[in-house]
Amino acid sequence: VVTELEDRVAALEGRLVLMEDQLAIYQLVMSYGPAVDSGSSEFASRLWIDTGFYDWDPDTETLDGAEAIAGMVRGADHQAIIHQGSAHVVGIPWLQITGDAAVGTCYSGLYRWDGTEFRVWRMTANRWEFAKEDGRWRVAKRTNRRLDGNEDARAVLRQAVEDRATG
Amino acid sequence: VVTELEDRVAALEGRLVLMEDQLAIYQLVMSYGPAVDSGSSEFASRLWIDTGFYDWDPDTETLDGAEAIAGMVRGADHQAIIHQGSAHVVGIPWLQITGDAAVGTCYSGLYRWDGTEFRVWRMTANRWEFAKEDGRWRVAKRTNRRLDGNEDARAVLRQAVEDRATG
Amino acid sequence: VVTELEDRVAALEGRLVLMEDQLAIYQLVMSYGPAVDSGSSEFASRLWIDTGFYDWDPDTETLDGAEAIAGMVRGADHQAIIHQGSAHVVGIPWLQITGDAAVGTCYSGLYRWDGTEFRVWRMTANRWEFAKEDGRWRVAKRTNRRLDGNEDARAVLRQAVEDRATG
Repeated sequence: VVTELEDRVAALEGRLVLMEDQLAIYQLVMSYGPAVDSGSSEFASRLWIDTGFYDWDPDTETLDGAEAIAGMVRGADHQAIIHQGSAHVVGIPWLQITGDAAVGTCYSGLYRWDGTEFRVWRMTANRWEFAKEDGRWRVAKRTNRRLDGNEDARAVLRQAVEDRATG
Repeated sequence: VVTELEDRVAALEGRLVLMEDQLAIYQLVMSYGPAVDSGSSEFASRLWIDTGFYDWDPDTETLDGAEAIAGMVRGADHQAIIHQGSAHVVGIPWLQITGDAAVGTCYSGLYRWDGTEFRVWRMTANRWEFAKEDGRWRVAKRTNRRLDGNEDARAVLRQAVEDRATG
Repeated sequence: VVTELEDRVAALEGRLVLMEDQLAIYQLVMSYGPAVDSGSSEFASRLWIDTGFYDWDPDTETLDGAEAIAGMVRGADHQAIIHQGSAHVVGIPWLQITGDAAVGTCYSGLYRWDGTEFRVWRMTANRWEFAKEDGRWRVAKRTNRRLDGNEDARAVLRQAVEDRATG
């Protein structure tokens, strides 16, 4: 009986870790908006691993490393946006967790106050790559593409489907 | 002591299943947008059970069966929408799980690029009915009503409240 | 072996409670929109504890007590909004749970049908304080500030970051 119990407890422990990982990643992603919309540059940068990437549009430079992400938040463009009024709203990711790595796909929207009304500034397809280090999930890479009809954005979303077909 | 431990482990197993079900349904719902916005018709249709329904507005025909859902995604209307730029953003459902069946209520929004800016094309009240078959959650029926002031849409949302009052 | 098993089961029970709390709060927050957009005033008010607050903008009066929240939902302004078509969409909160109390930070958006198209009526920074009473999570206080460039709204979001820095 005790041996059988040990097996059941070990199974529970494994299933619990997977759920804790999933919820921890949800929380990580939900913290992005409050960090950047409040201008908390250091906190935002530490959501990424030190060597993390943020590739947010093919026609702008990729942010390479956590320090570059902090610099983006402190930068004049971002500061102007948040002082005019902005909401960087990220959705709950559709996840695939494999041990200490995970990939998540979701949408993010940037809403801005234009002085008269709130507007949807952009809607974006997101692919997040996560890494668990010392028990803490962070972002290794985030790739965003605007959903303005370009094939790149559909490819970001399609990749999540193809990951399931092959994985 | 061992008997008491067995009871505690059995209780944990039951609570764990309920949480796994909840998280699995969250993931199912989060996969809808990436599937349809990338034109992944087969994958999208398999989110439904074979005999699933998608009733998305009283003035359009109900999609009856998974094959009809695949056909909608492949259809000219949907293809035009996604090639112009679209985001079908679904929220996390407010859930009631009863064994292998569940009902969830949430909002979904369709955002479209109109060539100049992103617009909120529609906001919709959603009622999802889920079924668990062979350990996998799928959609048995999804009912959407536009939140444009019609009573049907408020009734979709009110039903979720009434389910709690009576259940 | 049994003593070690008891320790492992006790550890599992503690971790499970934390996840159940997190998911219960997600569900509580996801129920707000369906309650108010369907005009379910009594249900909406019971999402708050009896002495709960809803402070939604510095220039309107704070709703003090669950009964005041029910009155807001029944009021002429809210009724006009929902009969014209509205979606009160709340995001998943970024949470800090401490025993029977919790704080969550997220965005909420009000989308309205204006007779011609759907519009983003407002985007708001939210701070929710939750309390668990008799095993059920409710809202003790909700504070909303419009993200229209005012410092108050950024402060709501920044507080969540600072809670982590110090807590």
